[in-house]
Amino acid sequence: MKKHNFSAGPSILPPEVLLKSSEAILNFNNDNLSILEISHRSKSFVDVMERARSLALELLGLEGKGYKALFLQGGASTQFLMVALNLLEKRAGYLNTGSWSNKAIKEAKIFDDVYEVGSSENANYNYIPKGYDIPADYDYFHCTSNNTIFGTQMKDFPKCSIPMVCDMSSDIFSRQLDFTQFDLIYAGAQKNLGPAGTTLVIIKEDILGKVSRHIPSMMDYKVHLSKSSMFNTPPVFAVYTSMLTLEWLKNLGGIPAIEKVNDLKARLIYSEIDLNPLFKGFASKEDRSNMNATFNLVNDDLKETFDTMLKEAGVDSLNGHRSVGGYRASMYNALPLESVQVLVEVMSELETKA
Amino acid sequence: MKKHNFSAGPSILPPEVLLKSSEAILNFNNDNLSILEISHRSKSFVDVMERARSLALELLGLEGKGYKALFLQGGASTQFLMVALNLLEKRAGYLNTGSWSNKAIKEAKIFDDVYEVGSSENANYNYIPKGYDIPADYDYFHCTSNNTIFGTQMKDFPKCSIPMVCDMSSDIFSRQLDFTQFDLIYAGAQKNLGPAGTTLVIIKEDILGKVSRHIPSMMDYKVHLSKSSMFNTPPVFAVYTSMLTLEWLKNLGGIPAIEKVNDLKARLIYSEIDLNPLFKGFASKEDRSNMNATFNLVNDDLKETFDTMLKEAGVDSLNGHRSVGGYRASMYNALPLESVQVLVEVMSELETKA
Repeated sequence: MKKHNFSAGPSILPPEVLLKSSEAILNFNNDNLSILEISHRSKSFVDVMERARSLALELLGLEGKGYKALFLQGGASTQFLMVALNLLEKRAGYLNTGSWSNKAIKEAKIFDDVYEVGSSENANYNYIPKGYDIPADYDYFHCTSNNTIFGTQMKDFPKCSIPMVCDMSSDIFSRQLDFTQFDLIYAGAQKNLGPAGTTLVIIKEDILGKVSRHIPSMMDYKVHLSKSSMFNTPPVFAVYTSMLTLEWLKNLGGIPAIEKVNDLKARLIYSEIDLNPLFKGFASKEDRSNMNATFNLVNDDLKETFDTMLKEAGVDSLNGHRSVGGYRASMYNALPLESVQVLVEVMSELETKA
Repeated sequence: MKKHNFSAGPSILPPEVLLKSSEAILNFNNDNLSILEISHRSKSFVDVMERARSLALELLGLEGKGYKALFLQGGASTQFLMVALNLLEKRAGYLNTGSWSNKAIKEAKIFDDVYEVGSSENANYNYIPKGYDIPADYDYFHCTSNNTIFGTQMKDFPKCSIPMVCDMSSDIFSRQLDFTQFDLIYAGAQKNLGPAGTTLVIIKEDILGKVSRHIPSMMDYKVHLSKSSMFNTPPVFAVYTSMLTLEWLKNLGGIPAIEKVNDLKARLIYSEIDLNPLFKGFASKEDRSNMNATFNLVNDDLKETFDTMLKEAGVDSLNGHRSVGGYRASMYNALPLESVQVLVEVMSELETKA
């Protein structure tokens, strides 16, 4: 039976990306070698790395604007640390919008002084704080664009006179934004980009080199930039699969095209949540995420029935995170509209039954 | 045409591992989902991680002896840093046997005092230093068991009263050793274990917790151990493929079985190097690596002819590293004896021609 994969991450990838990456494991580039067993210094792989790096910048509209792209390892969790090591000299401002922001703050605090410019912790992070100040003498401002666990998403970003750093792990490449407002963007691949195992980092080069500490090589963005993202052996397969996904997105029409589909999917699920009396949304309406819709049953007695119906319809991985409970529909770029339609039909059918 | 893949890394993997990992990208566990798009918290993947961790310990004979295995990201280059962060309080002793040892020393020096207990730099690392002292009041001793670039390999390890840390990236699982003599072993997967993108770390737990510094979460072995190697999203596919390779090795008869084949391959290539007057070996005979045989043509005028013959025979990636020049035959676990036979035939044919 066809599965509708709503996994929060690692999550669904386009079928043609899966097919090509599966083929490349048996025979990459018609060269009778597997993508897993070639040197990362081979021309075939250097081409992959360069194509992935330039596609990332191209799709975000950042080519020729002083930005460079890196494919590193260690996930966003390593970026929490690298951001602080590379940019934090005296003080940084963090917006606390949920678990991931919290972790970023925790890792940065190890080194220097970190200040929460705003937080929605008081309401279990069901909204995005607004109207906070970002002191102009801070080293940088850090925010999380989309909060997978709580289903909130920043629709606007503050005007910021200091470097703005954004963790876009769960919504990069999903919507049009003026990406030049950011100075550093990072994103674990495993939502909109590729398999777990690589992290895209986009850096405006001129923000680097301003801290006094000695930065260990693997933690130093300048070291990775100077080696074109090949300071050490990169995660070859994860980079290749990410490149395939970026090509898929480009062929589709880039971010403007996928944004339309993402808007449709979000409108579909949220209107069902709002109109169906059996469900209530978790996130504040104005801050609802187009990537992760969080909702609960009004009456938990229906849980067993609903879960059985979901299973019968092939709806997979709809469980909410334990901090919120209920359900979470993760609707990343590769999730087809059809899967959301199936989910909404099940929700609507439950109303008829109940 | 069949390729004989002598790549130094990322390198050859067993055909059945490639086949299974390719299939899992389309349909993992007959569950109609790709291994790339399932949650790392799903039972299917937790089982993979646990099986990979326990197979690693089992094959090394370390089960039930106070050791734990982790599959991390960032390569050996990140371990250079993590080892120092987790273990270095006052002073550590490093054996300098080549480029990788050098890099490990460089990263450790950032923090504290590091002392080279021995070095073969004076002879471009063509031998393994012997008879050095390891002060008993040092925090740990660090060595590199096999030096891919220079083709040397430690046959014996010093008796050591302090924790012994070993970078086994390029020869782990290739030969029988008393692995209990080591307290921490690390190895980038991309030689004998799996694709680039994960690093196996084996730790004797009782050596941890003895430094006074605060260790950032992602750099802290205790954090990763406390979360069973799932502190953050692991590199799912690289861990899965590593598990498949460990299963392949176990089915083959484990390290004793593969060691026999590796010995045969090494004897074959080295006897050709020694008997064929056109070639000379680079590494000191007693320290020759069973994984990477380094050799040069006595007369470089034959290079073009030899390279053409290699190409015609399907011998791939035999170029030596620029620090040594000439040729390097990397003969990791998955390289069949047949490939070495083909190479040796070409070398021998060159002698007839010349």
